[in-house]
Amino acid sequence: MLTEFSIVPIGVGSSLSDKLAIVLKIIDESGITYRVNPMGTVVEGTWEETMDLIKKCRDALMETEERIIINIKIDDRKSKHNAIEEKIASVERKLGKTLKK
Amino acid sequence: MLTEFSIVPIGVGSSLSDKLAIVLKIIDESGITYRVNPMGTVVEGTWEETMDLIKKCRDALMETEERIIINIKIDDRKSKHNAIEEKIASVERKLGKTLKK
Amino acid sequence: MLTEFSIVPIGVGSSLSDKLAIVLKIIDESGITYRVNPMGTVVEGTWEETMDLIKKCRDALMETEERIIINIKIDDRKSKHNAIEEKIASVERKLGKTLKK
Amino acid sequence: MLTEFSIVPIGVGSSLSDKLAIVLKIIDESGITYRVNPMGTVVEGTWEETMDLIKKCRDALMETEERIIINIKIDDRKSKHNAIEEKIASVERKLGKTLKK
Repeated sequence: MLTEFSIVPIGVGSSLSDKLAIVLKIIDESGITYRVNPMGTVVEGTWEETMDLIKKCRDALMETEERIIINIKIDDRKSKHNAIEEKIASVERKLGKTLKK
Repeated sequence: MLTEFSIVPIGVGSSLSDKLAIVLKIIDESGITYRVNPMGTVVEGTWEETMDLIKKCRDALMETEERIIINIKIDDRKSKHNAIEEKIASVERKLGKTLKK
Repeated sequence: MLTEFSIVPIGVGSSLSDKLAIVLKIIDESGITYRVNPMGTVVEGTWEETMDLIKKCRDALMETEERIIINIKIDDRKSKHNAIEEKIASVERKLGKTLKK
Repeated sequence: MLTEFSIVPIGVGSSLSDKLAIVLKIIDESGITYRVNPMGTVVEGTWEETMDLIKKCRDALMETEERIIINIKIDDRKSKHNAIEEKIASVERKLGKTLKK
């Protein structure tokens, strides 16, 4: 299961990088397969692994924040593995060229 | 915690209402506080109540579907209750008028 | 074309209702068909009508805000009219019951 | 302005890579600054550049498709340039380590 998520604290000022660093430290140390992009993080794992990780990130932020917005988008497809690499690779093969990642 | 979610099966044709009926039956019978809108369903509950419900909907669809896309947006705010009614009511008070719901 | 959107200013504190009132006043006075829900607003219109409206809301907030997050979800389906009412009605007919809206 | 978007055709079967190749060809040839990830594409440009590009992708798919779902998430921040590189770099500096991209 591929999942992209992002967490935005509301009301801490317009610079969020301190808060994003807390979240990305948790993701990076979790051992899950992930790719960070400028608008969120994509992870590949089971429902339980993924939701446990997102809850851990949320709990860490809610220790200090009053309000957060979480966006989660799931692409759940039977019998697909290594989708985190394969999805873009499949499009690149059809295009016959390498895309910017 | 307020959560809006939607589940879209990919590859079953462009009419989705049979599949949405399965999802909305589960939500309606769960006893959770919900409001359906033309693009998704908003529920109010704890993290566990909300994620258990979404997983139940997902599991029901994945019995027959090959691939689904799930969108989840969470507005998590400390010490707010009945946000499902109060959020719009608060805006209406500021505007001094009733909005279309 | 059905579109749900929400606009969240970052860094103004955890109460957003003053800012949401600005956005909803613009939507309500625009004449577009809309339904507000606790997590966003659904509108029905052409691409141009919809994007012009969202841009107007964004421009109004950016007069005073430093940073905003906008979420837009579009359900674009050929030859469907009054989808803002019909989508839920179609699911209700299949379920044989009225849902909470 | 940073924008992530994804377009999913409904009802064409569970393999979408042919359709995604059409979209990514348009993005790649547009000259806009972009980064593709397993769940969408992030672009950096003005409101007009970004929305013109998304509309071009949508129009191309709607030539053959009956129904598509488009997700758009915008991070609009005054006086920030090269956010597509800088946002992750800023988090990496705080963490003192390189993240998987």
